[in-house]
Amino acid sequence: MSKSRNTTKGRPSGRSPDTLKKLVQLAELVYEHAQKGRDPSVDIPLRTLSNVHFNTKSRIIEMGRSKQTRNFFNYGQAKRFMQTILVAAKCKELLDAGKSASIRQIYYMAKHTIAGTQEKTFVDQSESDPILEDLEVATASLREELHVFAANRGALIGELQFIDSGDSIDATHLGSGGYAIPSIVEPEVIQFRKCSAKFVLHVEKDTVWRRFVEDRFWEQHHCIITHGGGQPPRGVRRLLYRLHHELKLPVYVLLDNDPWGYYIYSVIKQGSINLAYESQRMAVPEAKYIGVSSFDYDRCGLTDDVKLELDQADIKRSRQILEYPWFQGKKNWEREIKKLLSNGFKMEVEAMISKSLTYLTQEYLPYKLNNKTEWLD
Amino acid sequence: MSKSRNTTKGRPSGRSPDTLKKLVQLAELVYEHAQKGRDPSVDIPLRTLSNVHFNTKSRIIEMGRSKQTRNFFNYGQAKRFMQTILVAAKCKELLDAGKSASIRQIYYMAKHTIAGTQEKTFVDQSESDPILEDLEVATASLREELHVFAANRGALIGELQFIDSGDSIDATHLGSGGYAIPSIVEPEVIQFRKCSAKFVLHVEKDTVWRRFVEDRFWEQHHCIITHGGGQPPRGVRRLLYRLHHELKLPVYVLLDNDPWGYYIYSVIKQGSINLAYESQRMAVPEAKYIGVSSFDYDRCGLTDDVKLELDQADIKRSRQILEYPWFQGKKNWEREIKKLLSNGFKMEVEAMISKSLTYLTQEYLPYKLNNKTEWLD
Repeated sequence: MSKSRNTTKGRPSGRSPDTLKKLVQLAELVYEHAQKGRDPSVDIPLRTLSNVHFNTKSRIIEMGRSKQTRNFFNYGQAKRFMQTILVAAKCKELLDAGKSASIRQIYYMAKHTIAGTQEKTFVDQSESDPILEDLEVATASLREELHVFAANRGALIGELQFIDSGDSIDATHLGSGGYAIPSIVEPEVIQFRKCSAKFVLHVEKDTVWRRFVEDRFWEQHHCIITHGGGQPPRGVRRLLYRLHHELKLPVYVLLDNDPWGYYIYSVIKQGSINLAYESQRMAVPEAKYIGVSSFDYDRCGLTDDVKLELDQADIKRSRQILEYPWFQGKKNWEREIKKLLSNGFKMEVEAMISKSLTYLTQEYLPYKLNNKTEWLD
Repeated sequence: MSKSRNTTKGRPSGRSPDTLKKLVQLAELVYEHAQKGRDPSVDIPLRTLSNVHFNTKSRIIEMGRSKQTRNFFNYGQAKRFMQTILVAAKCKELLDAGKSASIRQIYYMAKHTIAGTQEKTFVDQSESDPILEDLEVATASLREELHVFAANRGALIGELQFIDSGDSIDATHLGSGGYAIPSIVEPEVIQFRKCSAKFVLHVEKDTVWRRFVEDRFWEQHHCIITHGGGQPPRGVRRLLYRLHHELKLPVYVLLDNDPWGYYIYSVIKQGSINLAYESQRMAVPEAKYIGVSSFDYDRCGLTDDVKLELDQADIKRSRQILEYPWFQGKKNWEREIKKLLSNGFKMEVEAMISKSLTYLTQEYLPYKLNNKTEWLD
């Protein structure tokens, strides 16, 4: 992240100068083409699987350089051209007003009947969502920088003080509720202040997070604890990125021992295939998977009460994950996934409670934190 | 709520003396029966539709007095008897330890192989969840008083200061994220302090809530704003109950103009049929539905961009809701639902943004708040 973007203090000014400039440039190019009597167009990087690759050096999933040109004077492209410019205009409106909107709200803002026709600019949100993604890649901006948010999930507690929209927040004094992580966590909204945490523990679910909060794990172990309500939404991923890169905190993830848990880890660590263009601003290639491992069943002396049988979909999904380029050649991951398959069962983090109420927070996690050889990377 | 329950200050003691007493009484009765050579049994109020009615005086959905006796020496009841005692024992363990657990965690805590058999106490969570509900009604306790929580959703912001687990929280200084409403909001965890809010505005979704937060609606209108991420979970409903009953704040709800919105309102106001036993501790019969109304389309001069066609399920559901005893004889509700059906379309709160970015917070809501005749009761 460039430091120049984080200059606003207190209340958000609502403007990301760089993003605004990029939107204006996009419009100016179209205007210039029109002035010169040329066919106005915008270049949109291709968001197809063929244009995505795993960068082994940066260890994130990245987009390639292929682009598609969207022309105004092209029968097959004119509508999408119009939609792209329209969504861009609405984003500029948001930036100018210092406001933000949900992707649903963007759809309603941009929808209207085209003058002199019966035609709508957008028929439903499934048309405006991909246009917004186009705009993100075309301007190399995150959706959040365009002031657009998705529904949010996720919460944070622990040894961090920060400013959110001018309010000073001490995340050690948030009771049992914690801080609801917003969708937009850009530096113009959230500025970190004091941090005595030594690491971030990210857990999969709210119910597990509450176990840690209730046992005041963050106080004993000097950390920040986050959850993402399953697959973490963009706000949570972006915040993990910022905590890791700006505050240099290691990120440890604790997820269910199943292919879905492995996949969540994969997305946190190297980004997702669908939204490869955001990896650079969201992925944390240094994140470690500290549990639950397929080997924990024997190591922890668990009983068959914790076993959940793998179904065909789980088996298929596990094999797919093993084939991902970013899991290739990683002996410990190969061992882990093969052990899952030979176990024939999966396990949830919550199942640890079958040992005792505080087993997870007082025995399991402290052991994992102290034994790096247990981590999967 | 009896005042005697709210005596703990600071960190939660973890004990609700009344609830603990009820659990012990249940166990003592079983023990006494066994001592006397009688068949041990527990009485469970029936949670069937036939044992549910709408109390027109208190205006909430209530359970009747029918009970089922669950005996140990009865082939058809022995397993559920055992399960009931087992879940009760686990809840007592939670109360004694001053800890709480999710319904999933309760399942894992109570699951084991019955000594000398291959039989499990519980095969899956679908067996333990109804037992927990049995225990709630049998002890006349809320799940939260048994220290059991469900997954949580929902957030709060606005002119309220409170203590959560000993931490002092000022809900006017929570930035853009707000306070994540926990599942357990009982007085032993959350104590209200200063409140300058004049009312509570409850909105359906996170994305709408953010619109109000961003526009600092709570500051202009001196209120508390909550959302429940759709159908509000128990923690949010219980908090609305407490804000209404303890702080005497009126509760206004703003929901989508569709049968689902009507149903959410119905549950907030008079409780749900499935969980009638909790209505007395969660329902807010004085809650008002302030929008979105089927008449808003014309009144606000909206365009057909906001129309979402009603499907067959919507039509059927609307007619069912019109037949609920608690909507019967309410002229304005009859008008509202008939108008929805004659409109042939539904509308989302977010659609208001098609007028302008701040229409909802600066025109629509202030108008609604100032015109009581617009409210549906």
